[in-house]
Amino acid sequence: MSGYSFFQRASRAFNDYPHLPKLLVLFTVSGGGLATVCHTAFADAGQDDIIKKKKKIVVLGTGWAGTSFLKNLKDPSYSVQVVSPRNYFAFTPLLPSVTCGTVEARSIVEPIRNIVKKKNLDAEFKEAECYKIDTVNKKVHCKTTQPIHLGGGIEEFTVDYDYLVIAMGARANTFNTPGVVENAHFLKEVEDALRIRRTVIDCFEKASLPSISEAEKKRILHFVIVGGGPAGVEFAAELHDFVKEDLAKLYPALKEYVSITLLEAGDNILNMFDKRITAFAEEKFARDGIELKTGSMVVKVSDREISTKERSTGQTVIIPYGMCVWATGIGSRPVVMDFMKQIGQTNRRILATDEWLRVEGCKDIYALGDCATVNQRSVMEDISIIFSKADKNNSGTLRVDDFKEVIQDICERYPQVELYLKKKQLKNFNALLKGSEEVAEINIEKFKKLLAEVDSQMKNLPATAQVAAQQGSYLADCFNRLQVCEANPEGPLRFRGTGRHRFHPFRYRHLGQFAPLGGEQTAAQLPGDWVSIGHSTQWLWYSVYASKLVSWRTRVLVVSDWIRRSTFGRDSSRI
Amino acid sequence: MSGYSFFQRASRAFNDYPHLPKLLVLFTVSGGGLATVCHTAFADAGQDDIIKKKKKIVVLGTGWAGTSFLKNLKDPSYSVQVVSPRNYFAFTPLLPSVTCGTVEARSIVEPIRNIVKKKNLDAEFKEAECYKIDTVNKKVHCKTTQPIHLGGGIEEFTVDYDYLVIAMGARANTFNTPGVVENAHFLKEVEDALRIRRTVIDCFEKASLPSISEAEKKRILHFVIVGGGPAGVEFAAELHDFVKEDLAKLYPALKEYVSITLLEAGDNILNMFDKRITAFAEEKFARDGIELKTGSMVVKVSDREISTKERSTGQTVIIPYGMCVWATGIGSRPVVMDFMKQIGQTNRRILATDEWLRVEGCKDIYALGDCATVNQRSVMEDISIIFSKADKNNSGTLRVDDFKEVIQDICERYPQVELYLKKKQLKNFNALLKGSEEVAEINIEKFKKLLAEVDSQMKNLPATAQVAAQQGSYLADCFNRLQVCEANPEGPLRFRGTGRHRFHPFRYRHLGQFAPLGGEQTAAQLPGDWVSIGHSTQWLWYSVYASKLVSWRTRVLVVSDWIRRSTFGRDSSRI
Repeated sequence: MSGYSFFQRASRAFNDYPHLPKLLVLFTVSGGGLATVCHTAFADAGQDDIIKKKKKIVVLGTGWAGTSFLKNLKDPSYSVQVVSPRNYFAFTPLLPSVTCGTVEARSIVEPIRNIVKKKNLDAEFKEAECYKIDTVNKKVHCKTTQPIHLGGGIEEFTVDYDYLVIAMGARANTFNTPGVVENAHFLKEVEDALRIRRTVIDCFEKASLPSISEAEKKRILHFVIVGGGPAGVEFAAELHDFVKEDLAKLYPALKEYVSITLLEAGDNILNMFDKRITAFAEEKFARDGIELKTGSMVVKVSDREISTKERSTGQTVIIPYGMCVWATGIGSRPVVMDFMKQIGQTNRRILATDEWLRVEGCKDIYALGDCATVNQRSVMEDISIIFSKADKNNSGTLRVDDFKEVIQDICERYPQVELYLKKKQLKNFNALLKGSEEVAEINIEKFKKLLAEVDSQMKNLPATAQVAAQQGSYLADCFNRLQVCEANPEGPLRFRGTGRHRFHPFRYRHLGQFAPLGGEQTAAQLPGDWVSIGHSTQWLWYSVYASKLVSWRTRVLVVSDWIRRSTFGRDSSRI
Repeated sequence: MSGYSFFQRASRAFNDYPHLPKLLVLFTVSGGGLATVCHTAFADAGQDDIIKKKKKIVVLGTGWAGTSFLKNLKDPSYSVQVVSPRNYFAFTPLLPSVTCGTVEARSIVEPIRNIVKKKNLDAEFKEAECYKIDTVNKKVHCKTTQPIHLGGGIEEFTVDYDYLVIAMGARANTFNTPGVVENAHFLKEVEDALRIRRTVIDCFEKASLPSISEAEKKRILHFVIVGGGPAGVEFAAELHDFVKEDLAKLYPALKEYVSITLLEAGDNILNMFDKRITAFAEEKFARDGIELKTGSMVVKVSDREISTKERSTGQTVIIPYGMCVWATGIGSRPVVMDFMKQIGQTNRRILATDEWLRVEGCKDIYALGDCATVNQRSVMEDISIIFSKADKNNSGTLRVDDFKEVIQDICERYPQVELYLKKKQLKNFNALLKGSEEVAEINIEKFKKLLAEVDSQMKNLPATAQVAAQQGSYLADCFNRLQVCEANPEGPLRFRGTGRHRFHPFRYRHLGQFAPLGGEQTAAQLPGDWVSIGHSTQWLWYSVYASKLVSWRTRVLVVSDWIRRSTFGRDSSRI
């Protein structure tokens, strides 16, 4: 434990007193003389220079986006501070499996310190919650999340940044429905999944008691899931399998009292998927006895009843229930809302970034994952600038050939253009320009008319793990190549400025999405709208998920959990 | 779910309405005519007779004693109701391993319904807490333990018994030390172990924060264990291994602040073990840097400090700490204390049974495991009865040969006799009688003198899993053979009555005890005072524990946990 080198000790001093580097920087700014005095306090000035030069990146959050950023950041010239209330990364797509014990919670988590330790990276983790971002002084305010039973109350501290990466994720959205927070379970965190698992067993144990009436048994064993997205559907399917394969054997007298209902406010479940998948899922649920109520909006959740408003009849229906899982959608966390107010994004529901994931209206702040959305620029807004950029001689008219130089930049900067071409089955941008008439010259009005419908193809990215992970890896790559790209920008033309952007904008590559439907059957929507449903897709699901897990440890554990489940069933001990 | 046979439905009706069988019994007692009317309500009177005849056993508790009883009860002519706040059996000897993630909690538990389901036994489980035993009306009062968030508040119900088996275990004993309940962790239940695991990580995360001073770091990372018994020693060893093998790598800056202290009020740790084991453990702890303070009695635990009274100096010492684990000993649960008052065992600390595990002063109530102790009869108390039983012709004197017939019964009824013979290195009882003089005749005074020291060998059984498991299996065997043994009693002579006892009294067979000391080293005290210490004993420990686990599922899981730990280390995610 002794025998630290001087450098190690010095570097620890820096880490223990986070104000120190800041002070040094201030000194060097305020005057060379003072700086020199300060520097001589350290024997090894070379090392000190390295410390001083290191740019400080602060990462808030250890979910998909933050972890993917940390895993892909390779440049050792940054000093990284990670702040998150969770000291681990959780493989959230397997959370529905954790609710019923198909997979254990420990099998899908990996300590974040383990993830950053493996890399040649100067990274430190603090288990704390950021409650305020100070963009003026470039620091984040944090407070502890450890229970106060350790003595000493809540600790507060600040962390300075040169670059801030906000990857705090989102919270479950209750749409201000009364009683949801008090009575329903969410399915966002590992703790949620564990709580659901315990509550399912509680329901069965309570219903087993001799003093419970038939009606109460039915109520307690009525499991209601609100929200027909992938999480809600997968949980309903998992619960059905758990009841059918395991609990029915242990609680044979209760089998006939169990019911599962899925409430969806829209017309269909899994509405982001292909219609074939939705139809298959609805049929399978009907066969399994999972009741599906679409067009049913929850207006209130009490401790024993859920009130819904049925769109078809306009009537309010009262549904007695034992456990309710709320899986409807996501909303911004309070700290992000405050931050949005602070930087002037007041009318938005969700933090906006540009295509380089930079928070709009801020400097050196990036946001990725579920806490932010990429605000695409509309072509119509920029149309005159685009036109004038192509019109080098300011003639007011352009020939199709004149676009040659800027076509690629237009397509890169405005991805909706390519989607529009694809939709209209046009080969390229020239075809769009030439398409309507044989006029060789185009003026601005004509140009506007031709592109009028392009912006209809603008789409927000879905709030999925896949998007977050790609954003994290994209941003890490930008930081890794920051110096190279500052010297040689590789991005598209700056239409509203000169030169080029440093980086290519972020572009999402959809690799497909799964919807496990229970009974060893899964639906998958793969790129190119290829749809695959059934047992073979379940095996595809197994292999993709196993390969995507964050470490060999989690990979081995999850696979052994699957084997254990198929051999011994799921455990129903109430722990 | 449909298609139940009539019998199944009828039997469910009985189970759903536990008063029903009672009513039937009352009817049959009150008058034959009425009983017949009632019986004809059921089409299949033969089945009904079986139901009516079934004696009801109620088992309170699903720990070692209760589970061992249930596993060994084979007679299908009983109807068994199990009531416990835990719906699972936990392999408690591995709890210290759970505190540091060497073994996962799920791997050491098995649902009690799974255990009783496998057997040809009419058993039902209720997850509830017994809060009152009504010996007059032969029923136990129970209330639910499920959280009230399921709606409907706390349920109360009663269960009737013909035989009651109390196996509720014990609670941790604080010796009324102030602040222990509020600030210390116990190590009795699975939840305790999980809470300790989270708190260890909390301590490391909190100490990592930049705002924590050096002194606070030292305080927070000071782990104090109170009690030098096997549980405390094993936890200290596990924690040391966890810190050294896993946490030191993830929290390198904190390594030097960690300290572990074991406080023991007595002179030595592991005082129930051989002196060689104690010495080895003390040396190993010294080498590992675990501070051992003997003769140190804790008098108060505040949220940041432990106050001890040192026996050597008489002074009070204040010890700042981050986490405290209280592993000193056990006390009776409140419901058992109330029961003891009710049946007149007012001056005792722990419920007393006779050697047949029958609660003293009660009829048809048995108690086993940590909640009770076997009250051995002293020879001196019964000496005149023993003498007169041997003295068939009431001559007032006996020849050694006259004892021949009762020697075996004396030895069986008073196990201290055999221990005394062994200690004095006497071959048999005759040798004891003949030993002192060559007188052929013995009178009562002489007999008293010869046996005067025998009772010094009376020993209370330790409160271990081994004792509880043997008691459970013994009692189940008595129930299995109740009818056979009532016809042909096999026990010793009733000295204070006529005839023989139905069963042999319970006799504990000590199979050895382990004390894992960390670093893949274990000490074991095996029968015949054979002592084994070191790495090979660790492998013995692995194999014994693996074989003793309750099911194949837990066996596979625990072994795979051990393999996982040695491959990937212990997980430090805070979940």
